Amino acid sequence: MPSFENLLPVNGQWKQDVTNWLSEDVPSFDIGGYVVGTDKKTATLYAKSDGVLSGVPFATEVYRQCNLTADWHFEEGQYLDTAENGKISVATVTGSAKDILLAERTSLNILSRASGIATASDAVISRARNIGYTGIIAGTRKTTPGLRRLEKYSMLVGGCDTHRYDLSSMVMLKDNHIWSRGSIRNAVTDARKVCGFAVKIEVECQSEAEADEAIESGADVIMLDNFEHDALKVCAKSLKAKWTGKKHFLLECSGGLTLQNIDGFLCNDIDIYSTSSIHQGVQVVDFSLKLNH
Amino acid sequence: MPSFENLLPVNGQWKQDVTNWLSEDVPSFDIGGYVVGTDKKTATLYAKSDGVLSGVPFATEVYRQCNLTADWHFEEGQYLDTAENGKISVATVTGSAKDILLAERTSLNILSRASGIATASDAVISRARNIGYTGIIAGTRKTTPGLRRLEKYSMLVGGCDTHRYDLSSMVMLKDNHIWSRGSIRNAVTDARKVCGFAVKIEVECQSEAEADEAIESGADVIMLDNFEHDALKVCAKSLKAKWTGKKHFLLECSGGLTLQNIDGFLCNDIDIYSTSSIHQGVQVVDFSLKLNH
Amino acid sequence: MPSFENLLPVNGQWKQDVTNWLSEDVPSFDIGGYVVGTDKKTATLYAKSDGVLSGVPFATEVYRQCNLTADWHFEEGQYLDTAENGKISVATVTGSAKDILLAERTSLNILSRASGIATASDAVISRARNIGYTGIIAGTRKTTPGLRRLEKYSMLVGGCDTHRYDLSSMVMLKDNHIWSRGSIRNAVTDARKVCGFAVKIEVECQSEAEADEAIESGADVIMLDNFEHDALKVCAKSLKAKWTGKKHFLLECSGGLTLQNIDGFLCNDIDIYSTSSIHQGVQVVDFSLKLNH
Amino acid sequence: MPSFENLLPVNGQWKQDVTNWLSEDVPSFDIGGYVVGTDKKTATLYAKSDGVLSGVPFATEVYRQCNLTADWHFEEGQYLDTAENGKISVATVTGSAKDILLAERTSLNILSRASGIATASDAVISRARNIGYTGIIAGTRKTTPGLRRLEKYSMLVGGCDTHRYDLSSMVMLKDNHIWSRGSIRNAVTDARKVCGFAVKIEVECQSEAEADEAIESGADVIMLDNFEHDALKVCAKSLKAKWTGKKHFLLECSGGLTLQNIDGFLCNDIDIYSTSSIHQGVQVVDFSLKLNH
Amino acid sequence: MPSFENLLPVNGQWKQDVTNWLSEDVPSFDIGGYVVGTDKKTATLYAKSDGVLSGVPFATEVYRQCNLTADWHFEEGQYLDTAENGKISVATVTGSAKDILLAERTSLNILSRASGIATASDAVISRARNIGYTGIIAGTRKTTPGLRRLEKYSMLVGGCDTHRYDLSSMVMLKDNHIWSRGSIRNAVTDARKVCGFAVKIEVECQSEAEADEAIESGADVIMLDNFEHDALKVCAKSLKAKWTGKKHFLLECSGGLTLQNIDGFLCNDIDIYSTSSIHQGVQVVDFSLKLNH
Amino acid sequence: MPSFENLLPVNGQWKQDVTNWLSEDVPSFDIGGYVVGTDKKTATLYAKSDGVLSGVPFATEVYRQCNLTADWHFEEGQYLDTAENGKISVATVTGSAKDILLAERTSLNILSRASGIATASDAVISRARNIGYTGIIAGTRKTTPGLRRLEKYSMLVGGCDTHRYDLSSMVMLKDNHIWSRGSIRNAVTDARKVCGFAVKIEVECQSEAEADEAIESGADVIMLDNFEHDALKVCAKSLKAKWTGKKHFLLECSGGLTLQNIDGFLCNDIDIYSTSSIHQGVQVVDFSLKLNH
Repeated sequence: MPSFENLLPVNGQWKQDVTNWLSEDVPSFDIGGYVVGTDKKTATLYAKSDGVLSGVPFATEVYRQCNLTADWHFEEGQYLDTAENGKISVATVTGSAKDILLAERTSLNILSRASGIATASDAVISRARNIGYTGIIAGTRKTTPGLRRLEKYSMLVGGCDTHRYDLSSMVMLKDNHIWSRGSIRNAVTDARKVCGFAVKIEVECQSEAEADEAIESGADVIMLDNFEHDALKVCAKSLKAKWTGKKHFLLECSGGLTLQNIDGFLCNDIDIYSTSSIHQGVQVVDFSLKLNH
Repeated sequence: MPSFENLLPVNGQWKQDVTNWLSEDVPSFDIGGYVVGTDKKTATLYAKSDGVLSGVPFATEVYRQCNLTADWHFEEGQYLDTAENGKISVATVTGSAKDILLAERTSLNILSRASGIATASDAVISRARNIGYTGIIAGTRKTTPGLRRLEKYSMLVGGCDTHRYDLSSMVMLKDNHIWSRGSIRNAVTDARKVCGFAVKIEVECQSEAEADEAIESGADVIMLDNFEHDALKVCAKSLKAKWTGKKHFLLECSGGLTLQNIDGFLCNDIDIYSTSSIHQGVQVVDFSLKLNH
Repeated sequence: MPSFENLLPVNGQWKQDVTNWLSEDVPSFDIGGYVVGTDKKTATLYAKSDGVLSGVPFATEVYRQCNLTADWHFEEGQYLDTAENGKISVATVTGSAKDILLAERTSLNILSRASGIATASDAVISRARNIGYTGIIAGTRKTTPGLRRLEKYSMLVGGCDTHRYDLSSMVMLKDNHIWSRGSIRNAVTDARKVCGFAVKIEVECQSEAEADEAIESGADVIMLDNFEHDALKVCAKSLKAKWTGKKHFLLECSGGLTLQNIDGFLCNDIDIYSTSSIHQGVQVVDFSLKLNH
Repeated sequence: MPSFENLLPVNGQWKQDVTNWLSEDVPSFDIGGYVVGTDKKTATLYAKSDGVLSGVPFATEVYRQCNLTADWHFEEGQYLDTAENGKISVATVTGSAKDILLAERTSLNILSRASGIATASDAVISRARNIGYTGIIAGTRKTTPGLRRLEKYSMLVGGCDTHRYDLSSMVMLKDNHIWSRGSIRNAVTDARKVCGFAVKIEVECQSEAEADEAIESGADVIMLDNFEHDALKVCAKSLKAKWTGKKHFLLECSGGLTLQNIDGFLCNDIDIYSTSSIHQGVQVVDFSLKLNH
Repeated sequence: MPSFENLLPVNGQWKQDVTNWLSEDVPSFDIGGYVVGTDKKTATLYAKSDGVLSGVPFATEVYRQCNLTADWHFEEGQYLDTAENGKISVATVTGSAKDILLAERTSLNILSRASGIATASDAVISRARNIGYTGIIAGTRKTTPGLRRLEKYSMLVGGCDTHRYDLSSMVMLKDNHIWSRGSIRNAVTDARKVCGFAVKIEVECQSEAEADEAIESGADVIMLDNFEHDALKVCAKSLKAKWTGKKHFLLECSGGLTLQNIDGFLCNDIDIYSTSSIHQGVQVVDFSLKLNH
Repeated sequence: MPSFENLLPVNGQWKQDVTNWLSEDVPSFDIGGYVVGTDKKTATLYAKSDGVLSGVPFATEVYRQCNLTADWHFEEGQYLDTAENGKISVATVTGSAKDILLAERTSLNILSRASGIATASDAVISRARNIGYTGIIAGTRKTTPGLRRLEKYSMLVGGCDTHRYDLSSMVMLKDNHIWSRGSIRNAVTDARKVCGFAVKIEVECQSEAEADEAIESGADVIMLDNFEHDALKVCAKSLKAKWTGKKHFLLECSGGLTLQNIDGFLCNDIDIYSTSSIHQGVQVVDFSLKLNH
């Protein structure tokens, strides 16, 4: 089975991000590093609360840039269960004392957030599967500025879909875009001129009639927006019945889905439910790094 | 009364951060921008959930870099109450359609996180004041990689203290440092050699005896670590009584304080309580930006 | 009709690229700038060979960064016909003498390459339309390192499709990928896990059987590779007949198409022909910038 | 014999350029890398059209940054003859599958352009030598933005001269500069004040009288501009006769020389002919990289 | 005893500075590197004038980035005495000829300046100790733009204090700040709101009354400004007597202290004397790097 | 008369340097800026010691980046005479209080160093002219890392020559290079292959025979190294006599020239004397910036 870490290029901007995150913590001198010096030490990375492990290649890169080696005892995507002792050893980190203490905070800040997102994503998709939903749960672009790569990555680790990555990926035509171009048909036609065959077009629709226009115009994804629960299901069924075999499209529903309200929400005529509740404002997983002595 | 935005230099790395955050969202082309074009539009920034407004200069910089003007209807630090209509107009943003849609997501992602932290900080400090605590509630270095400036800023907006900013600011000598140097006294002496008179030294102590040694060695801040509640209060009172007028120091307590457990926690012999619960894993405040039409 | 320049975000990496290109030309001092000084001058940008104008927003950004104003007499995408005088005035540039001479070479180097690509793209798509092809002519990723944005942009200006922008856009599964995963089906399934619903999957196929497997596995685009001309047309017709109404997919043919050989090449059962001949190794359009005196 | 690659500093901006070129191809995730994984593979770099090999240290740096090793079977500057099989193995590249596929496109895009320039440069200088010209053929500053180092390098590999590298190298005083300072003498005097003894001054002259003034003023290189062929030769001979032993200068002729028209163009009284035809808009050499299986 | 080099994080901006310094010296090609090639050589780093060695980790990083190894024969902080031969071997550097010559100038420029500052710092603090001063001699923020880390570091190596590192470290309230806020008390109160408990506040005072107000307001450091020598000593003694045991503060005196005038200047009631004479405009120590042959 | 500031491109790396220098001073928050706020103020830039004003465009860029305007009362290159009042007003700076205090230290640190170099350069060239030397006094590459542009610029302002700017400018072949290539002739021939006609070659020679070989090989500049004073003059005269009218070359002497020893040193057969004493370890000129109140 492929490993998520292979999504990250061996040489890419994400490694520079790690460098910048480390630099953020030491603008001038590392006084603590002066105090502890360069004796070789081993440290244990503990999880202190439960969750799905994510962010491993990012933390590993922190350790690598600090001349440390990390030996991981769990794989990304595994559930860390701290019930027995209140904590569990996740990795062993080895190197000089000052380098370990330098890497400590940045690596923990990464893992705690990444694992928090994977945990929340896992919870929602697991619940959806339990109640029989076979489609996609996706995140949104409501990610932390500068941290989108880590957060989209953690959605994948948690079993969800990243949704479009940015404004250059799948184009989404919302009310604003449609007002500007006069009609859904015009907006889709304009977008297709520049996104070509390789990039998908999604259109936000307020009614079945709008959805029909979008589908006919060649939209790849139809987002049904602001529909009541029952009306949503009726509309989705009607669209699938009407267009199957004639036009290819996916149906997306966005808005308000959370782990708490998911049960009455899902329906298999909707291909994708998108929600920022799996990555924004979620609880972190608690990690610590302690020198062995 | 001074304005927090004056903490941000007119020309500084934080503006480059904003540029990078915008670039993260458009690696190649802005297809939606092509569709909507450059007609001049006005948009309204709404808060859709309650909270303390924070992040205004960062969002303003997003708008400025996108050639937009923003007219804010609230000041940073004010409480946004959405009870009446479920939403409230926070600012008016004006400029070309494509530029507004470009700035939309980045500015909202900033404001939602910054205001979430200010809201959580305000809740904790308000509760502390209500139950008679007169000291400091401070955050920690458990901030989002790359976002420390925005998050420490929002702690201030919410009425809390930033604690030390990074490893080059106040040095904190923990168990790891002390083990490395053999004694608290040695560690403090070494640290003082390089941090000089301008940077404070904090020492994490496990007992009153350790605290005595740290105070005697010239530590500026004593963190009492892993004390039971009552033992903490007894130790704090004892240290203050013993050393007042002889040595200058502050007492800090760290660990576990949250809005939920605060009532039984505080005591005025402790000068500072630090907690990441005011900024890590907190709920975001919900904002949206809608073109007026 | 929308303007291609709106594809470029008001604040983005492409503006930093322009800054870097200017810096490449003056590592230390601008001695010529010292000699000519800051007298206000007007200069004329001439085209000296025929072609389709492209690169205008990039050149305009050069002028803007050099404190110059540019008044363009043609729109991007227009054909510049120099037959009458051997040259034609394309824009008027105004500012200080030293700034004009600084901007000169960088702006010309941009326009000459961008217009060369737009001209070659226009020639191929025009010929294709003349002989009745209604589908897409697209470029490739064989672009100049660091210049992809300008070159993909110029394909659009010339009437062609950009094809996928980079490795993070539409995924293309070639023989190498398929060997690695054991089968087309495995490769498509793995890819879908991480690219989700928003990113398309293209599969390079060596036979109709492979194409069938790819289509069945959910590939969005099928590239028919290494087919003889007649076999290509037969296979394309067969696939379209077999799968229409059952599965959605596009057919692409890549390899060897040029302006010279296009006539015997095209067939409307193929949705996309991709070729680097419209952008790689193409003739530049000749431009010059002369101070008026 | 020295190797051109030693022109490139072991640690320099050109390595950062390579990093940026790689990043251009993966703004977020490398989906194909996820599919193929990290199995160790060997790949063969083929040339598929004839030409002079150039760009080797740049491609090697791509491989190095991608954790790959490259074993080159040809030296830079050698002619790659593909006549026998339509292709020829140029190098063997070894490393993990995903890293090879990441490095593929960027390394090929470099080599194809660099070798195209070396090939065109070699063709012109070889023809010049064949017809008895003993002087210099040089390129120009009409290079691709951001790629000047690679392109100037390839001129050298092809046997030509780079001409001045940028505006901080040899200063060139053209009509614009001279109009601004009132006379050639003034312009040369001003330029000398700041470029000192270490940087050469070239002056563009429209007549022998202007050339005399420039030589007398201390110009190091005289560019004869807009002379008819015969007039050019007469003027060059006259200037050499008049000034030899009195003033030191070189004569340059620029404009219009190409491989096609070179025969009637050259004359040994001209020290340098400069032409962008050896590097701008030239045919690329075709390379591919294929996993061995 | 801890080593100053441990103040520098294993991965930090200071290493990027070194890269930039190297790049400053080779904007395009390293022609000398082409001439000398890659034969393995050994070179000797000589000091040619006396002084305290400083800048070792920075020079070592230059060598590391140039693929060289350096074997140092002295430790940072040691006095280099060149009396015997007019020069002394400080380190041996090994690697390829071209890499040594590339690293040469940058490493020497670093060492000469760093050691110059350490030497001047050592001279002043040694003289102060000789005449019985037990307090701190500190530098200032009058450092070379872009070189603050190296210069503050060298003050430490020379035995002096760095004083505050930047505007984000200890805040200093001068006349300008106090005029703006109306009173010392207001200025200190405002500053404390944002710098919290972790950052010190220093106030520049013109009189004992001002010093009293500053101390009472909670200032951590009092700078006595523009006092005559005797008045300074009287005021210092009076403040210490008045406030000891009541308020904690340090007394600083700034202005005019140099190695030449130090004898009549110092008094142990002043905790800190700050002076830019230990780092600004100081003599460099002369170093050279010679290939062994 | 041209202005030195026109040597600086309107958009170039030097402006980014200024940004970085400002950022160096505020890694996180500007606490003082918070205290003083944004009231509009006027400040006076004073010189407090005598010297030649240099660095004006760099300081102006600091002010511009801080939203300040600067009105200069002296031109670059003018002598600032502070005799009358111990200080003299050099410029008036206007803008918000916090922005002035932010710009203060960086602008002063620039001006003090730049003017120090211009002053030292002016002193040496003036003395040389006074004793009848008509040639060139030049600096060296012994400049402060990261500050070469400012320092070379200040040599020009002070009336001296910058000498070669970096390793990509004029190539200098020293003993190391010559040993590597076996002979001066080989080294010059190799260098010429890559530096072409546009870049000069200088050769360091230990004897007249070596100088003859270098001149014959086509070196542009001959550095006479390690000659005794009289031997130097004899050799220079001999070389000029021998080669005039046959070969073009300049003679340079390097080593040990200072303002103190200049009188017995100069001779008009030497075209250039280079010395780092005009820019390395020189006294700064003292400047201050004071808010008017």
